[in-house]
Amino acid sequence: MKFKKQLEGLQAYKPGRTMEEVKKAYGLSEVVKLASNENPYGSSPKIQQLLSEGGMDFALYPDGYAASLRESTAKHLGVKETQLIFGNGSDEIILLVTRALLSPSVNSIAASITFSQYEHNAKIEGAEWISVPLKEDGTHDLETMLAKVTNDTAVVWICNPNNPTGTLTPSKDIYSFLERVPSDVLIVLDEAYYEYVTVSDYENSIPWIEKFPNLLVLRTFSKAYGLAAFRVGYGVGSEEVIAQLEPTREPFNNTSISQQAALLALEDQTFIQQTVQQNTAGKSQYIEFCERHQLRYYPTQTNFILIDIEQDSDRAFEYLMSKGYIVRSGAALGIPGTLRITIGTKEQNDGVLHHLEELVTKEKV
Amino acid sequence: MKFKKQLEGLQAYKPGRTMEEVKKAYGLSEVVKLASNENPYGSSPKIQQLLSEGGMDFALYPDGYAASLRESTAKHLGVKETQLIFGNGSDEIILLVTRALLSPSVNSIAASITFSQYEHNAKIEGAEWISVPLKEDGTHDLETMLAKVTNDTAVVWICNPNNPTGTLTPSKDIYSFLERVPSDVLIVLDEAYYEYVTVSDYENSIPWIEKFPNLLVLRTFSKAYGLAAFRVGYGVGSEEVIAQLEPTREPFNNTSISQQAALLALEDQTFIQQTVQQNTAGKSQYIEFCERHQLRYYPTQTNFILIDIEQDSDRAFEYLMSKGYIVRSGAALGIPGTLRITIGTKEQNDGVLHHLEELVTKEKV
Repeated sequence: MKFKKQLEGLQAYKPGRTMEEVKKAYGLSEVVKLASNENPYGSSPKIQQLLSEGGMDFALYPDGYAASLRESTAKHLGVKETQLIFGNGSDEIILLVTRALLSPSVNSIAASITFSQYEHNAKIEGAEWISVPLKEDGTHDLETMLAKVTNDTAVVWICNPNNPTGTLTPSKDIYSFLERVPSDVLIVLDEAYYEYVTVSDYENSIPWIEKFPNLLVLRTFSKAYGLAAFRVGYGVGSEEVIAQLEPTREPFNNTSISQQAALLALEDQTFIQQTVQQNTAGKSQYIEFCERHQLRYYPTQTNFILIDIEQDSDRAFEYLMSKGYIVRSGAALGIPGTLRITIGTKEQNDGVLHHLEELVTKEKV
Repeated sequence: MKFKKQLEGLQAYKPGRTMEEVKKAYGLSEVVKLASNENPYGSSPKIQQLLSEGGMDFALYPDGYAASLRESTAKHLGVKETQLIFGNGSDEIILLVTRALLSPSVNSIAASITFSQYEHNAKIEGAEWISVPLKEDGTHDLETMLAKVTNDTAVVWICNPNNPTGTLTPSKDIYSFLERVPSDVLIVLDEAYYEYVTVSDYENSIPWIEKFPNLLVLRTFSKAYGLAAFRVGYGVGSEEVIAQLEPTREPFNNTSISQQAALLALEDQTFIQQTVQQNTAGKSQYIEFCERHQLRYYPTQTNFILIDIEQDSDRAFEYLMSKGYIVRSGAALGIPGTLRITIGTKEQNDGVLHHLEELVTKEKV
C-alpha cells in the first residue's frame, strides 16, 4: 500500500494501564488518577440532569453547525459566530490546522517541551519540525522562535500556559511576538488551561484577533469545565481563517449530547469559579511541599504541577502507582527526573504527597 | 496565511434548514425529516437506560483504545481486535485514509455518483480525482474502474450499497475486482448500509480480508443501529493496514458515552432485525407507488430510495417541504430530476407519498 513515507516510525497512541488493571496488578481496592489533568470535581451537575431527562432521538445526526453552542460561545466570548470552529476536542482543531496548512514544503515551529500533538500532527503532514527549547523558567523563548521563522514557516504553536510545565509566558511577550511575526504565518495560541490562570496581568488574547487575523486561539471544555469524556474544543480566529479551516472539518464532528453538555457547562460559571478556587488551594499544598523539601518546581498556572524530584522518574512513577496514585513520569514527557501531577482534591493531594515524601526523604538519606 | 492551494474553492458543510426553521417558514406544526437516512425507529431502548443510570464521571477522558467496544465488535465480526479502527463516524475513517495515503502525487478512483466525502477528502489532500460513471442500473462499473487504475493509484472507493442510488454491486463482481486490482492499491469498501441488505447472494466481505490485505471495510452505527447522534463508525482491515492508519487517528476520538452506546446497540440484535423487517415493508410502499405511476427508481438495498420524478427536483423538494416532508433533492446530489427519500415509518411513507402523488399526477396532466 502507498502509505505516505512520513508515517514510517510514527507511534500510534498507546493506552496506559486502566485503573482496573492497576488495582489488579498491585492488589489495591482504590486508585487515584492524577495523570491526565482532569477536573477532580467532575463537571456541572446540570449535565447528568440533561442525560436523565431523556427525550433525545439518538438516530438523528447532530447539528453539524453546532448552532446553539455556537451562539452561546460567541456571546460568552464577545466574538462573531463565524469566528468559531468547533472540534472533537481541541485535538481535532490541531489536526485541521495541520491538514490545511502543513506539507513537506513548509515548516512549523513550537517549543520543546510542549504538548506533543502539534509535532505529531505536523509529522503526519510531512512538514519540517523546528523546536525551540523552553527558557530555564519553563516559559516560551519567543525571541528565538521568532528568529527561526523563515519564508517557509506556515504555523507557529504557543501553548499558554504550557503543558507539561504549567508555566505562563507573559501576555506582553506574546503580543510583542505577534506584532513582529510575518502576518502570513498562522499563530496557534493553545489556551487549554486558560480558566485556571490566576495571575493579574494575564490578558485575554481573544480581542487581539482583530489586530492579528493570523492568530487562532484554542480553548476546550475538557479541562476546567470537566467534560473530557465529551470531546469538545474550539478555535477562535478571524473570519478569514475560520472560513478556510471549515471545509477541512468533518460535517458532523461533535455528538449531539456533547454539544448540549458543553452548552450547559458554559452556562454554569459558578462551577468554574469553584473549580478554580479549589485548584488554587490545592496548588498551594504542592508548593508548600516542594519548598519544604527544597524540590525545584515550575510555577504553575494550571491544574497540574511539574516537580523535579531529582531521581529516576519512571521508578518514582511505579512506586506511586504501587501506592494507588497514577501520575505522569517526566521521562514519558521528555523531561526525565520530573513528575507531572494533576492537582486533585485536598484528600488526593495529601495522599500522593504522603507517598512522594517517603520517596524524596528515603532518597535523600 | 499559507493555506494549501487545493483548499481554494472547496465548500464547507452548509447546514440545511432545521426542522424548527421549516416549521416556521411554512407555518407547520409538524415536520418529518426523510433526508439523512436516519433510522425512523430510533435506537435500542437500552441506550436511554444507560444515560439515565448515571454514575459516569464526565471529567475523565474516554478510553482512547475503545477496549470494551473493540472486544465486542471483534467477537461479533469474527476478527482480531487489532483488525479494527474506530472513528468519529465512518466519516473519520475516510478522513484518516486520505490523510495517510493521498497527496498531490497520487490519484484516487470512485464512482460517480457516490458518497461525496471520498472526493471531498481526496481534494483536501490534493490528489488527482478520477470518477467513473455508475452503470445504467446504478451499480459500480468495476471493469472501467479497474481500467483506470495506474501506478499512481493509492485508493479506490466502492460504496456498497451505493449512496445515493441504494443499489448493490454484486459480491462476485467485487471479489473478481479484488483479484485483479494491484495489491498495493487500498480498496475501501464502504458498507454503511450493510445491515439493510436483504438479497440472498450478498456475501459478507470481511472474510475476504484474509486473502486481500489491501481491503478495508467500513461499517457504522449511524444507520440501522440508529446512533447517528453518537458518531461511531469503524474500519475492518488487515493488521498491517490498521497499524499504519492508527497513528493518524486522534487519541481520544470517540466520546465515552458513544462507546458505551455502540456496545449496547451491538448487543441488541433484535432491534436490528426489527428495523430491517420494518424497512423492507416500507420499501415496498415506495416500489408499489413507483410501479403504479410508472416512475423509474433504483432497486434499493438500503433505507432510502432514489426515484426519477421526471421533473425539477428542487421544485419538488420545496413542494414536499411546504407539506412538512424534508427529502433530498437529486439536484443537490448530482442527479437532477430525482428525489432521494429515506424510508420512514408506514405513516411517514404514506404521508410523503400522498404529496408526491399530487405532484406527479399534476405534472402529467
